[in-house]
Amino acid sequence: MIFSHKVQYYETDRMQVTHHSNYIRFMEEARSSFLEKVGFSYKRMEEENIVSPVIDVHAQFVKSTTYGDVIDIDVKVKEVSMAVVTISYTMTVEGKTVCTGESKHCFLKDGRPTAIKKVNPGLYEMFLKYKEENL
Amino acid sequence: MIFSHKVQYYETDRMQVTHHSNYIRFMEEARSSFLEKVGFSYKRMEEENIVSPVIDVHAQFVKSTTYGDVIDIDVKVKEVSMAVVTISYTMTVEGKTVCTGESKHCFLKDGRPTAIKKVNPGLYEMFLKYKEENL
Amino acid sequence: MIFSHKVQYYETDRMQVTHHSNYIRFMEEARSSFLEKVGFSYKRMEEENIVSPVIDVHAQFVKSTTYGDVIDIDVKVKEVSMAVVTISYTMTVEGKTVCTGESKHCFLKDGRPTAIKKVNPGLYEMFLKYKEENL
Amino acid sequence: MIFSHKVQYYETDRMQVTHHSNYIRFMEEARSSFLEKVGFSYKRMEEENIVSPVIDVHAQFVKSTTYGDVIDIDVKVKEVSMAVVTISYTMTVEGKTVCTGESKHCFLKDGRPTAIKKVNPGLYEMFLKYKEENL
Repeated sequence: MIFSHKVQYYETDRMQVTHHSNYIRFMEEARSSFLEKVGFSYKRMEEENIVSPVIDVHAQFVKSTTYGDVIDIDVKVKEVSMAVVTISYTMTVEGKTVCTGESKHCFLKDGRPTAIKKVNPGLYEMFLKYKEENL
Repeated sequence: MIFSHKVQYYETDRMQVTHHSNYIRFMEEARSSFLEKVGFSYKRMEEENIVSPVIDVHAQFVKSTTYGDVIDIDVKVKEVSMAVVTISYTMTVEGKTVCTGESKHCFLKDGRPTAIKKVNPGLYEMFLKYKEENL
Repeated sequence: MIFSHKVQYYETDRMQVTHHSNYIRFMEEARSSFLEKVGFSYKRMEEENIVSPVIDVHAQFVKSTTYGDVIDIDVKVKEVSMAVVTISYTMTVEGKTVCTGESKHCFLKDGRPTAIKKVNPGLYEMFLKYKEENL
Repeated sequence: MIFSHKVQYYETDRMQVTHHSNYIRFMEEARSSFLEKVGFSYKRMEEENIVSPVIDVHAQFVKSTTYGDVIDIDVKVKEVSMAVVTISYTMTVEGKTVCTGESKHCFLKDGRPTAIKKVNPGLYEMFLKYKEENL
């Protein structure tokens, strides 16, 4: 699924390009939109007392972007284990890759790390379904 | 009372200066240090279920700053009314004013707007004491 | 003219609401979109060596917002003088005002403060036109 | 070398902990201080037309931190190749690891990727020296 982010002036830095830390935020933005579209918005998760912290984040910067660029972010479910989901991101501007990334997430139910299936079977099925679509 | 903030690379923008929105954050940083020094840290306030939202913020930008500059922020209590405290900020780099600002704060006890004296008489006395020091 | 910003997770704070400093960024976002729509994008201005720093910013926080809220930002040209333009912002969520703001801007041509008309007569006319529309 | 960052209120999020994207900024803060201490500040590099973009960043989040926590960041030079330097970061609060990270940097001289030794032999020697100290 593809989401877009238009780079804002306040996201650029002294080198006149998008500051690298912001791509980590764009990843969250795209992931959050993805979850909302498939029916598991953060809001719904919060209501069910599910918290899903980021435990690992990795980004490779291929080409700089700057103010006004529209970054298209392709979000994919890469891996689903008992306790951890890995999401991957490919970011392009006008078809050219500018950044690739990955984030890993665990799930807490009432504050304790829990198997995703136990936290919410539907959520687990959804991750599996999208993982297979990407094969 | 004076607090210092060293401008970071990620706080600059495409114009190669500190992005103006960050001064609002520096004001919070200085205010938070001030409250901690006088014994009313946000943490203590949170423990007493006191929440103090910003209801108004104003900044005037006099001179740009950039990466590596050390901004000295002089925090003063400007006004204390029943329900609202006004804090003022004078920011200088090597003695030259770069930005002046003001923020207004109300106080919520258990979620409801409350007279500061009622929320915590010691807090009210402290604000009055520092206000007079500035006269 | 109205622009929208959906509040992101990374824009919220420990109080579980949108951090107040971010509204200053939303104002820039809306202003930048406005200028782009009327044909004077920052990019075009940069190409013409026009720089327009913020010299004053003011915001009043009426009601908190949080993750997922869509903030509609109504941008208006409030005042146009020789050297300074004042832009005003009314931000609403589902029709209810959450924040109002104002920003003042001067114009530098090749690094020196210059009358807007001299910097670019078309830009000056545009500001006047939108100012009158709001009367 | 160890650097400290006190977590600010504006760096926390709705989950009431430090937002994960900010650790990437703390890494930059520590790296920038490290370079300044060893005589190769960004400012000096800029003056010599050396630009050093981040090409890869990786962080593992072990334990959450929040407002008021003082994060000690231990910066080490991990690898030095012809064209790329890898810096590693171990972040602790009161001795407990909260986050570990790594960043990779290349070097541009007058806009082109260049061998570090060619960019500045002293810079290359400094990286090697600190790399060995960590063995």
